[in-house]
Amino acid sequence: MCMRYLLLAEGFSDNPLYGKTMRGVLRYRREDVVAILDSTRAGEAEDGVPVIGTVEDALPLEPTTALVGVVTQGGHFPPEWMKLLRACVENGLDVENGLHVFLADDPELSSLAAERGVELRDLRRPPAGLSTATGANFGVDATIVLTVGSDCAIGKMTVSLELDLEARRRGLRSVFVPTGQTGMAIAGWGIAVDAVVSDFLAGAAERLVVEGRERGGEILWVEGQGSLLNPVYSGVTLGLYHGSAPHLLVLCHEVGRTEIEGTGGGPHPIPPLRELVELHERVALPARPARVVAVALNTRSVGEEEARAAIAAAEAETGLLADDPVRFGAARLVDAVLAAAP
Amino acid sequence: MCMRYLLLAEGFSDNPLYGKTMRGVLRYRREDVVAILDSTRAGEAEDGVPVIGTVEDALPLEPTTALVGVVTQGGHFPPEWMKLLRACVENGLDVENGLHVFLADDPELSSLAAERGVELRDLRRPPAGLSTATGANFGVDATIVLTVGSDCAIGKMTVSLELDLEARRRGLRSVFVPTGQTGMAIAGWGIAVDAVVSDFLAGAAERLVVEGRERGGEILWVEGQGSLLNPVYSGVTLGLYHGSAPHLLVLCHEVGRTEIEGTGGGPHPIPPLRELVELHERVALPARPARVVAVALNTRSVGEEEARAAIAAAEAETGLLADDPVRFGAARLVDAVLAAAP
Repeated sequence: MCMRYLLLAEGFSDNPLYGKTMRGVLRYRREDVVAILDSTRAGEAEDGVPVIGTVEDALPLEPTTALVGVVTQGGHFPPEWMKLLRACVENGLDVENGLHVFLADDPELSSLAAERGVELRDLRRPPAGLSTATGANFGVDATIVLTVGSDCAIGKMTVSLELDLEARRRGLRSVFVPTGQTGMAIAGWGIAVDAVVSDFLAGAAERLVVEGRERGGEILWVEGQGSLLNPVYSGVTLGLYHGSAPHLLVLCHEVGRTEIEGTGGGPHPIPPLRELVELHERVALPARPARVVAVALNTRSVGEEEARAAIAAAEAETGLLADDPVRFGAARLVDAVLAAAP
Repeated sequence: MCMRYLLLAEGFSDNPLYGKTMRGVLRYRREDVVAILDSTRAGEAEDGVPVIGTVEDALPLEPTTALVGVVTQGGHFPPEWMKLLRACVENGLDVENGLHVFLADDPELSSLAAERGVELRDLRRPPAGLSTATGANFGVDATIVLTVGSDCAIGKMTVSLELDLEARRRGLRSVFVPTGQTGMAIAGWGIAVDAVVSDFLAGAAERLVVEGRERGGEILWVEGQGSLLNPVYSGVTLGLYHGSAPHLLVLCHEVGRTEIEGTGGGPHPIPPLRELVELHERVALPARPARVVAVALNTRSVGEEEARAAIAAAEAETGLLADDPVRFGAARLVDAVLAAAP
């Protein structure tokens, strides 16, 4: 049976900072979303999807799965959210959750789910049987392309998804490889690598590219995480990089961003693009000398003219093709990747 | 009360590959060890410490704590080991364990321990309340020195310990900061950073340097882990590097080693020392531009003349001071660090 999503966004559906998962699913899995639940906006619509006020109001639309679409304050579920989740379970909906707190660990919700025969899927719970990397990553018979970036939250997942979509439009055997909870909600598989024990980080990334190949991918677009120069998440970035064993990197950057955001102890300046290209190639493993093949610019904060100028400037600075795949399409970036594929 | 260790090494006490913790504790905490338990060698001695065959035989020596000193096959506890551990608990010994498998998760052993009033300390269990890094690492008012290396298991912990010992001999307020289970068994505190969820890796490293300062350290010797070019553990290495915010790095290398060991998908060659120095400085955060201040060579596999030649060659290649602190003492290395301290 196909999944039909009810997106839970109570109190946050109009806040882009807290709704990365909701927005990702709306953008890339629109056809599977029946409604957004946010009682503070009931009766409105978001991207053409009705906003409803209660789980009961959604039932005529026949949802199969409730997805926690926002990050609640502190990443926990306050009492009103628990009430909402219980209502979903009582009405026979599976629940998907990408927060750090696991729903299946709540004894009451868990026993209610067992009683109603529904599933609580905690997307960030690492799968069983993870281990250290074995070297199988280097044997994957596919072109592996990882997005890397100047910071977190600049659009690495979006770039990987757009390039995958464009490659599939061309009839290529292309697979998006999800490494975070939003990518997992969109693609329906994957591992949230930042929730894995550090020792098994590269092993988790290895398992993902092996599975991407098993799913038929001849070109794998691995969703990047963090940044090599982000003082909080750089370990995740490098473990994912080495563990996914990419042949090619697409460097992502947001126009206008000059510092790593959301961290203390700084300022943590973002170096020029040319330096970022060199840094990422410098830390490649000798056994898999990845190179940066293109620059994906996020130009959402500027007008079209300025966006085109920024793309031209990035090309001049790096000598690489640059583009904004959301604004101008992914065709040129995919061309550049295919031309460089081993 | 002081700890008096019974080192559990059943079947492995003469196998250096499996006894990193036993050997580390024997070398750096010799005065606290009353006996080694290995029934296959009962009656012998190891570095002057008696090897005994049963827990009961150790009791006249008044041990307080049994320490799992070896890595059992597969990192699990087979039935004969569980029997041994039960005997320790029944005789009133606390148990310290650095394996991935946690003793406190064994219901039978756990309830027996509660009954006897002894503690099961799983060294690799992450402490409660870990979180992402906050930036407090950059505010630590001490000189932070991290050991980094060309590979795993080449002596980074030993170098950090030797430099700390030498600094303390000189009367400096020096603290060794343990980041792995053996270092923790030796120093009696710390976090096994490779057992922490990836998202909290830098946060754990931050907590360690903050605590090192709180313990009175004006110079902190942070035990390094893995290697930036080890395809299995590089994420741990970079997370620890950025999270511990070192001012200075000591690059560790074993003479004669040319490839990363124990990994698949290779060969994974070790680049020349000069390149390793450059790589480690290249990935420093702009907010904390760490530099490599000296090279610590492990020369255990060669004779003295060859060792001196290797040290001279390393100095010529890197332009940095080089030495083997185990073979020739840590004085010159500590001099180099102190001369470079901010």
